[in-house]
Amino acid sequence: MISRDKHNRMANAIRFLAMDAVEKANSGHPGLPMGAADIATVLFTRFMTFDPKAPLWPDRDRFVLSAGHGSMLIYSLLYLLGYEDMSIEDIKNFRQLGSKTAGHPEYGHASGIETTTGPLGQGLANAVGMAIAERKLETEFGSELMSHYTYVLAGDGCLMEGISQEAISLAGHLKLNKLILFWDDNGISIDGAISLADSTDQHARFRACHWNTIAVDGHDPDAIAAAIEQAQKSDKPTMIACKTVIGFGAPNKAGTHKVHGSPLGADEIAATRKALNWEEEAFVVPADVLDAWRLAGLRSTKAHREWQDRLAAAAPEKKGEFTRRFAGELPGNFDSAIADYKKKLAETKPTVATRKASEDALEIINGVLPETIGGSADLTGSNNTKTSQTKSITPDDFSGRYIHYGIREHGMAAAMNGIALHGGLIPYSGGFLIFSDYCRPSIRLAALMGIRVIHVLTHDSIGLGEDGPTHQPVEHMAALRAIPNLMMFRPADATETAECWQVALEHKHRPSGMALTRQNLVPARTEYNEKNLCAYGAYDLAPADGAKVTIFASGSEVEIAMKARAALEDKGVATRVVSVPCFELFFEQPEDYRKAIIGNSPVKIAVEAAIRQGWDSFIGSDGVFIGMNSFGASGPYKELYKHFGITPEAVVAAAESKLS
Amino acid sequence: MISRDKHNRMANAIRFLAMDAVEKANSGHPGLPMGAADIATVLFTRFMTFDPKAPLWPDRDRFVLSAGHGSMLIYSLLYLLGYEDMSIEDIKNFRQLGSKTAGHPEYGHASGIETTTGPLGQGLANAVGMAIAERKLETEFGSELMSHYTYVLAGDGCLMEGISQEAISLAGHLKLNKLILFWDDNGISIDGAISLADSTDQHARFRACHWNTIAVDGHDPDAIAAAIEQAQKSDKPTMIACKTVIGFGAPNKAGTHKVHGSPLGADEIAATRKALNWEEEAFVVPADVLDAWRLAGLRSTKAHREWQDRLAAAAPEKKGEFTRRFAGELPGNFDSAIADYKKKLAETKPTVATRKASEDALEIINGVLPETIGGSADLTGSNNTKTSQTKSITPDDFSGRYIHYGIREHGMAAAMNGIALHGGLIPYSGGFLIFSDYCRPSIRLAALMGIRVIHVLTHDSIGLGEDGPTHQPVEHMAALRAIPNLMMFRPADATETAECWQVALEHKHRPSGMALTRQNLVPARTEYNEKNLCAYGAYDLAPADGAKVTIFASGSEVEIAMKARAALEDKGVATRVVSVPCFELFFEQPEDYRKAIIGNSPVKIAVEAAIRQGWDSFIGSDGVFIGMNSFGASGPYKELYKHFGITPEAVVAAAESKLS
Repeated sequence: MISRDKHNRMANAIRFLAMDAVEKANSGHPGLPMGAADIATVLFTRFMTFDPKAPLWPDRDRFVLSAGHGSMLIYSLLYLLGYEDMSIEDIKNFRQLGSKTAGHPEYGHASGIETTTGPLGQGLANAVGMAIAERKLETEFGSELMSHYTYVLAGDGCLMEGISQEAISLAGHLKLNKLILFWDDNGISIDGAISLADSTDQHARFRACHWNTIAVDGHDPDAIAAAIEQAQKSDKPTMIACKTVIGFGAPNKAGTHKVHGSPLGADEIAATRKALNWEEEAFVVPADVLDAWRLAGLRSTKAHREWQDRLAAAAPEKKGEFTRRFAGELPGNFDSAIADYKKKLAETKPTVATRKASEDALEIINGVLPETIGGSADLTGSNNTKTSQTKSITPDDFSGRYIHYGIREHGMAAAMNGIALHGGLIPYSGGFLIFSDYCRPSIRLAALMGIRVIHVLTHDSIGLGEDGPTHQPVEHMAALRAIPNLMMFRPADATETAECWQVALEHKHRPSGMALTRQNLVPARTEYNEKNLCAYGAYDLAPADGAKVTIFASGSEVEIAMKARAALEDKGVATRVVSVPCFELFFEQPEDYRKAIIGNSPVKIAVEAAIRQGWDSFIGSDGVFIGMNSFGASGPYKELYKHFGITPEAVVAAAESKLS
Repeated sequence: MISRDKHNRMANAIRFLAMDAVEKANSGHPGLPMGAADIATVLFTRFMTFDPKAPLWPDRDRFVLSAGHGSMLIYSLLYLLGYEDMSIEDIKNFRQLGSKTAGHPEYGHASGIETTTGPLGQGLANAVGMAIAERKLETEFGSELMSHYTYVLAGDGCLMEGISQEAISLAGHLKLNKLILFWDDNGISIDGAISLADSTDQHARFRACHWNTIAVDGHDPDAIAAAIEQAQKSDKPTMIACKTVIGFGAPNKAGTHKVHGSPLGADEIAATRKALNWEEEAFVVPADVLDAWRLAGLRSTKAHREWQDRLAAAAPEKKGEFTRRFAGELPGNFDSAIADYKKKLAETKPTVATRKASEDALEIINGVLPETIGGSADLTGSNNTKTSQTKSITPDDFSGRYIHYGIREHGMAAAMNGIALHGGLIPYSGGFLIFSDYCRPSIRLAALMGIRVIHVLTHDSIGLGEDGPTHQPVEHMAALRAIPNLMMFRPADATETAECWQVALEHKHRPSGMALTRQNLVPARTEYNEKNLCAYGAYDLAPADGAKVTIFASGSEVEIAMKARAALEDKGVATRVVSVPCFELFFEQPEDYRKAIIGNSPVKIAVEAAIRQGWDSFIGSDGVFIGMNSFGASGPYKELYKHFGITPEAVVAAAESKLS
């Protein structure tokens, strides 16, 4: 048992590391680490199960700092607990270029950072996904291999963001009772007192969403510990409201917004040292305090060893499967299943919407990949994301593989990030492409973190028809292609859809989006090819010797390109069609390949039922673009294509005009 | 007083128009209009104050159909109430290309459509903005000119979206007691029963946010009426939970998700006609029912006349100001105030961050435009959006002109849309550019609707430094430029900032975004020019005869371009610099102007601390782009610029390499 005095000194170690690092960087947020130091100290010295020597132990408890600006809280903890890749030098390099200790916690920079946080509310929703993953894997592999808590520390900002409501209501609905949220209730935000902008009764709000709530003094270690004990026994997720003082310990600035996002200054730091009886110089932790922290870092060594023994004792198949899943490797029969399916498509040559083609591909994929976990933001029948293998998960039965996320696109995408980060599962979603706007911040974070989440985004253009411009993506392909590291796919038929799924799943460290049609498409590919042509991003779909015209197109517009080609060839104009399912992958190909695909025909035309932005990379700024340059309209889709001039005739006319 | 039987027949008129129109279009959502017909009938025949002959009467009650898929509810109401631009032919043309009756209600298509809805949750947050505008204008002009209710009908989808929490908590905090929300509590969403995905106690949730809540049978007109009366007396906003049956009246499909988004089919429609004793053919409303509806349309004629009398009797200045404000015209002294300010800048030549320059411009603007209403999503001191004129609005005092929106970017942007739609005010926000992702759906709707909202988006690149990649926009300029009709500005100095503000304010029918720096910039413009050069979108900042190199740049990179130019000129290379504060406006210029600006120098270079996407329109696909091709990093900003190679030296090297 840690004495109150020792506890205080351990918590103060966090406080001083945080304020000293912020001061040295002359940049950062000391207020949260100082205010939440007691909570973190109790949690990590008495409750958290983890092993600094094996930071990726699958059954570790997860800790998410949703209030990511308080990054020095995590960095301090990791150093103090003895994580080998977090030294005092790293702490001193806080916020410097190339350091592990970035302004906000960056997943992958150092062990023990479970997710990238900073954009508020995201971490909370990630934690919901982690708790979903835990429950799902516990159901699948048994509590001997999977049974841990997920803790998350959130501030007022996290709770004011709308995404928090989506996350909280989903967690409450799913009864994620091993999810425990600490609300750093310090009453302060950047503009000043929270009361300037909010008067929500957070306890009542969480209870309305079927959470258990507890209120404690966030500087009373025993009260915090009692609350965690109570939370661990709850049959609901628990919110522990911790009344804290932001910048606790700073005699003049504590409790004010001045301590939120700026260095304290040398005078105030000196005054804090005095007030907290801390005699050490900057970045020096007294030996007894460091020893106590390092001892805390060893708390779960035995638990980890016992877990290893249980894994070793498990049936070989179960052990192998568990290990494969957490390594993120696909099973050996995946490629052959896709190959067989592509062979079948080459025979059946189906005319289908790519959303339906995606369902058919998923039927194969879900059959060989037990780790996929699907879902939709209440558009299951429209997104075609549910297959014969994916029974719905319910609050009391996680044996299914499908989540009814509700009308919560943002919460869904962030929870998927959490599921992927947890490991052992590959999440895919369902939504309309237009509503990628609702979850864009989470898609961006998936790209920044480099994690495998796959978004099925149907109804991908004016081709959705009557629902009109509020539901017709026009700028979304461009906007999503703009996100670094995200693979945005827009397949042209069933074969391309299968290939895009294959590429998406094979990339362990990249998220993907699948833009899919509502309307039927004739097959672009009619012969089996063992190569995954979509993996090249763009490829010669219909070559032509000495082509005078090259038409580049994606998705539903490939059919238009092929019709235009037929008409041009009839007129004796040699015409090539290049299918472009994925910009990102194409631009990563070797220069030779790129040059060959772009080619040198005198006329270059791109066709996509979306804006031009980005297509100049294929056709040059003097190329012809056939697409949208405004919002869409409500009407039957075939009329819309004519109205907006996206037709084979328009392509032919443009080609002839350029050639003449 | 309308008898129960007459009420039922009036409500059934809505139901049959809705189901017949959806059937004819073979597309649409009959379930909501059928379920909510009783609510709408009570509201519009007993409570709503409006005048179909003067649909823009500023003091009308506002009605927002947040569940926009139920668009036939609005169209039916407008036709039945006698709005002159909604005929039965329009109803028959539901969802056809070019019709007023689009799939979802489109603002501007027909009178009485107060906002474009469909993306869920937006209308609810628009309504919060409308209620804010009403309270603000009541405070300013008195209740004799401004005193109305704002009603909103929301479904489960609206309430599950995170934006609803931001809107609800803001409305509760601000005590918007004239905001009355009907929750169409039908227990059904697209995937099936709401209980599949949610179990939130909505009453408790709204009460936690300081709303009044009432539960009624949504098919009992007197109960609905009693609830509205109670709500009108409340000192808080009120949520009326109306238990309804989706697709009410359809004998076999009512109460199921089958009636949500598909035509009922001929058989079910026939069965519904029988069940509801409705003998008329499709699109025929019995004369007595139509008469009763038309009479309801005249309910507020007297109230409107009395209001007109009060306006006529008002002091001339007040009357003139009120009229000007609702016409959306700027005051006569606006241009001269900006001109004077630009003259001053030409003298003082300040080196400032553009966020600070924006504050200085706003200090001038807010002095001459009493209609601006500012705010920030809890970043006031960082966004520099508060000026000496903008006292904070508080729940009990709306005499201020500044809203502490809290950490609610999405709710803020949607509320701003509502404020602009209401009329009489010009809203501007404050946020970080990175968090435009959080409110993108609302920015898109502002662009689609063509309304004047202005987003101040600071910390616009890696120039923000240490906060790192989670806070550094890289793809956001491209992603926002991709939205049709949105003017995205990125001014290079204080003069450009003032000009961009002027352009943004002068466009009544377009939203704007202002990407502004955290870091200081030396002035690009040092001479007074009476022309607003930024209005051209791009202009010759530093011409050069026979330029061998043209450098295009925006914002903070104009300084880099100018330094590179100086170095190249020193080496005898004639170099032009084009400043590009706004892509959208540039591409709307006449072809001659565009050609002249793009010019024909052999080397074209663009510099922007963001991705290349979009810049090929200036430099061609063989041009040189100096910018970002990945996410940013945490570190001091000057080091980041060097690290990512965005420097004058890099520009010079690229130019020389191209020229050699």
